[in-house]
Amino acid sequence: MEKRIRVKAPASVSNLNCGFDVMGLALEEPYDIIELEITSTGVIEIEDIRGCDDLSRDPARNVVGAVLNAVSLETEGNPGFRVILEKGIRPGSGIGSSAASSAAAAYAADVLLGGRFSKTQMVRFAMEGERLASGSAHADNVAPALFGGITLVRSYDPLDIVELNVPGELFCVVVHPEVEVKTSVARGLLDREVPLATAVRQWGNLGGLVAGLYREDYDLIGRSLEDYIVEPKRSGLIPSFSEIKKSAMAGGALGAGISGSGPSVFALCRGEETAVRIRENMSRVMLSTAIEFDAYLSPVSKAGAQLCQ
Amino acid sequence: MEKRIRVKAPASVSNLNCGFDVMGLALEEPYDIIELEITSTGVIEIEDIRGCDDLSRDPARNVVGAVLNAVSLETEGNPGFRVILEKGIRPGSGIGSSAASSAAAAYAADVLLGGRFSKTQMVRFAMEGERLASGSAHADNVAPALFGGITLVRSYDPLDIVELNVPGELFCVVVHPEVEVKTSVARGLLDREVPLATAVRQWGNLGGLVAGLYREDYDLIGRSLEDYIVEPKRSGLIPSFSEIKKSAMAGGALGAGISGSGPSVFALCRGEETAVRIRENMSRVMLSTAIEFDAYLSPVSKAGAQLCQ
Repeated sequence: MEKRIRVKAPASVSNLNCGFDVMGLALEEPYDIIELEITSTGVIEIEDIRGCDDLSRDPARNVVGAVLNAVSLETEGNPGFRVILEKGIRPGSGIGSSAASSAAAAYAADVLLGGRFSKTQMVRFAMEGERLASGSAHADNVAPALFGGITLVRSYDPLDIVELNVPGELFCVVVHPEVEVKTSVARGLLDREVPLATAVRQWGNLGGLVAGLYREDYDLIGRSLEDYIVEPKRSGLIPSFSEIKKSAMAGGALGAGISGSGPSVFALCRGEETAVRIRENMSRVMLSTAIEFDAYLSPVSKAGAQLCQ
Repeated sequence: MEKRIRVKAPASVSNLNCGFDVMGLALEEPYDIIELEITSTGVIEIEDIRGCDDLSRDPARNVVGAVLNAVSLETEGNPGFRVILEKGIRPGSGIGSSAASSAAAAYAADVLLGGRFSKTQMVRFAMEGERLASGSAHADNVAPALFGGITLVRSYDPLDIVELNVPGELFCVVVHPEVEVKTSVARGLLDREVPLATAVRQWGNLGGLVAGLYREDYDLIGRSLEDYIVEPKRSGLIPSFSEIKKSAMAGGALGAGISGSGPSVFALCRGEETAVRIRENMSRVMLSTAIEFDAYLSPVSKAGAQLCQ
């Protein structure tokens, strides 16, 4: 008899201005859901994809297939999986759409296999989805999608994920303008070398951000949300970026910036009331453009990948 | 009637591997002492320097003079100061000798002037001493010398010092080989540009270090004490650096590296017993060379600049 489980994993905002490639934060919503069962066929079958027409059901071309394949290869007997993917997060939005699917797949497989993998090992599996999606096995979205909260990828080799403290009143607002920003293009804009003096400013801010999270010092968090390396290069990819960011700051945001490699723009703030005002401000700027958009408002999720209730 | 006070300020270890130019830690000893009084002459007079024959008593060529001059310029009536400097820290050692004198001078002047300056303003004054000593008004030693504990210079403009949590069992061992390393030469060895990928590793570690300090997670602190940017360039200036570092790690250090711009080598560890063993190990390596050295062992100082009891 086959057991079928449903697991969800949330969207996430990576980089957080000063933490390029290392910082990430989980939202409560939107999220993706994976329905998974183990099969005796030994193959991976994507039975259905709901909520999105653009993704391939070929397991070699879908991040979920890449993740489950990695799990199967490391599991005795190389089990097969049958999966239904329900996309709540739009691909290409820059809020960890592939990461959420990948994290949910890794977590669901672990549950069905009896909980044999550590979360860090699950991150490793989920990174195979990122490798397929973007050509780079980064962990700054899959880590928060799996662990929840705010995570730091201290090191990739060996993989070392640090779960940071989450101040209770921290809210996140995201607007997703419907323009395409390919991660590969966004990465290509970055210089391979950065001035040492600029790097020093960046890691001064990252230290300030981590300290601010532990001290629950919202002012310090805000002062630390600066980006001298990535935002100047990438912001041109996002129409009206500067106006969107300004509108968030005018609404009382602690900071704002590009979510991952964009095109989504995020703002962090203290308290839901401020978050509602910021969402209005950012949405107003978006409405003044001709660009379709989605807007999200969410506390930082304490839970990452989890069984659906 | 003139009032004369005595203030001491401790040695400090800056950079801490991953935090070049932003991190610093205060030791309990060694320290410098300033004996200071305000005078009506309007000039700055260095009456005596004890414990060191190499420093100039010309206030234009001594860091204490530079600091007191900066204080005087920002104080109504431009008071004069008469000062005696007792050096407990050897100049050129790489453990913040000029910073300790500068911090003590700034703090003592503030006490005599009735406590009108914030600690951040005192750091600014003390940075004038660093500017004179090394040509660069850095704050990573004067901040811990003034505040005590472990500090982060989040930003230089505006100056923003963050006092980090200090785990109670953290000890520091320092050996100071008697070789000369000029800060200007040490800085000149650094590339003006660094690979982005290397900068990412460095700020991943800095985030890990700050998180480790707050979590009092000594293992995480240890894993984060890596330096991919500065140590590879500068370690050649310090004879037997690699052997000294290895001996510290063999003794149970969480991490070890170059203190400031050297030549001192520091190690961090958990608990005094381990610190004693590490000091023995590091001293044994130094004894095997023909180089004179000093060795220090100290908990992280909770207090920075303070009135002598």
